[in-house]
Amino acid sequence: MPTREFQRARSPEAKRLREDAILDAARRLGAERGIRQVTLTDIAEAVGMHKSAMLRYFETREEIFLRLTAEGWRDWAPDLAERVGALARPDADTVAAAFAATLTARPMFCDLLAQTPLNLERNVSVEKVREFKLTTGDGLGVILPAVRAALPALTEQDGVDLVAAATSLAGTLYQIATPGPEVAALYRSDPRLAHALVDVEPQLSRILASMLRGRIAERTA
Amino acid sequence: MPTREFQRARSPEAKRLREDAILDAARRLGAERGIRQVTLTDIAEAVGMHKSAMLRYFETREEIFLRLTAEGWRDWAPDLAERVGALARPDADTVAAAFAATLTARPMFCDLLAQTPLNLERNVSVEKVREFKLTTGDGLGVILPAVRAALPALTEQDGVDLVAAATSLAGTLYQIATPGPEVAALYRSDPRLAHALVDVEPQLSRILASMLRGRIAERTA
Repeated sequence: MPTREFQRARSPEAKRLREDAILDAARRLGAERGIRQVTLTDIAEAVGMHKSAMLRYFETREEIFLRLTAEGWRDWAPDLAERVGALARPDADTVAAAFAATLTARPMFCDLLAQTPLNLERNVSVEKVREFKLTTGDGLGVILPAVRAALPALTEQDGVDLVAAATSLAGTLYQIATPGPEVAALYRSDPRLAHALVDVEPQLSRILASMLRGRIAERTA
Repeated sequence: MPTREFQRARSPEAKRLREDAILDAARRLGAERGIRQVTLTDIAEAVGMHKSAMLRYFETREEIFLRLTAEGWRDWAPDLAERVGALARPDADTVAAAFAATLTARPMFCDLLAQTPLNLERNVSVEKVREFKLTTGDGLGVILPAVRAALPALTEQDGVDLVAAATSLAGTLYQIATPGPEVAALYRSDPRLAHALVDVEPQLSRILASMLRGRIAERTA
């Protein structure tokens, strides 16, 4: 049996199954504890592989999470585009609300969005960064036509600014809104720290709506 | 001499001098290589102290960098408030430009702003987080009156949204704009990756100007 398993794992199909098992374990652990708390050893233990064997499938911990971020873009972009396309009254407020709702419905994606430029893109090969950036480019290619169909005043550059603002803010506000339990208790206990309390979806929606309202005014002035 | 030095270091004055030397070394190394590349051992070596001795002054590497972030707020907030106060024609564009210019003039502060919610606030005591948040609250107390005097339509909440958007975007865009040298070369070499190239100051200024224009329109409608 061990011999047969080993041979199977050398086929492209078996290799993919192993990769999927590793990604599943990383996804589950990341959702449970937050990305920064998950080590390569944790993932190897969860998937029942030796760490050295796992390195045949992924070079680093960061490569695993960068793959999950790419998966997040492929999941988020069509959902957002569909919601924007289905808006009965597309305007700055409803488009902004669609961005905020689809992002905050994906907390692990928000966590990954913040980790990407700081950590994930810095500990993988250049080839993996290229693959990842092609995926985010594909995501833009899905989102921008939907946004520009809904709000025809906007240019391509406006759409790029909107997606950059939405993903950057979603990542950072998510991190600010999910401190450790002790710090969360501190924020609630000290009224001088009220400014540290963040409610991601309404704040993200407000900021993006104002940005869109202003940008539309600039284009139609 | 060693005895005398040791005794001096026990006075509050000597303790402060040691702390300043540690912060100076961390500031210099952080500016040179980026915050994520600086370890506690690097700082100890640069300041010529044993790591164990340094832990008498700062609990963790993150506490050192959180102190530098607080220092960054105390430096940035009055500079921004002064520039906003001195604007000949305060409007959405000029106030946004003042935010973008003062933030991008401080690259290490931008680096620290991105590191803060992800890393720095998660490996220090609750008391240090409280101190830090009181400093950011003081910063808001300097910035908001200047912004509201320049743009009287804005509410306190609008000012909080503006500072949240500005600091979150400055941190993330800075990280995106400063990849490692190999990845930077990749972005320039592959035209399909043009969307990965970011020029922080104009993009930040454009996004904040649209946001301010939209928010002012909402308040004066």
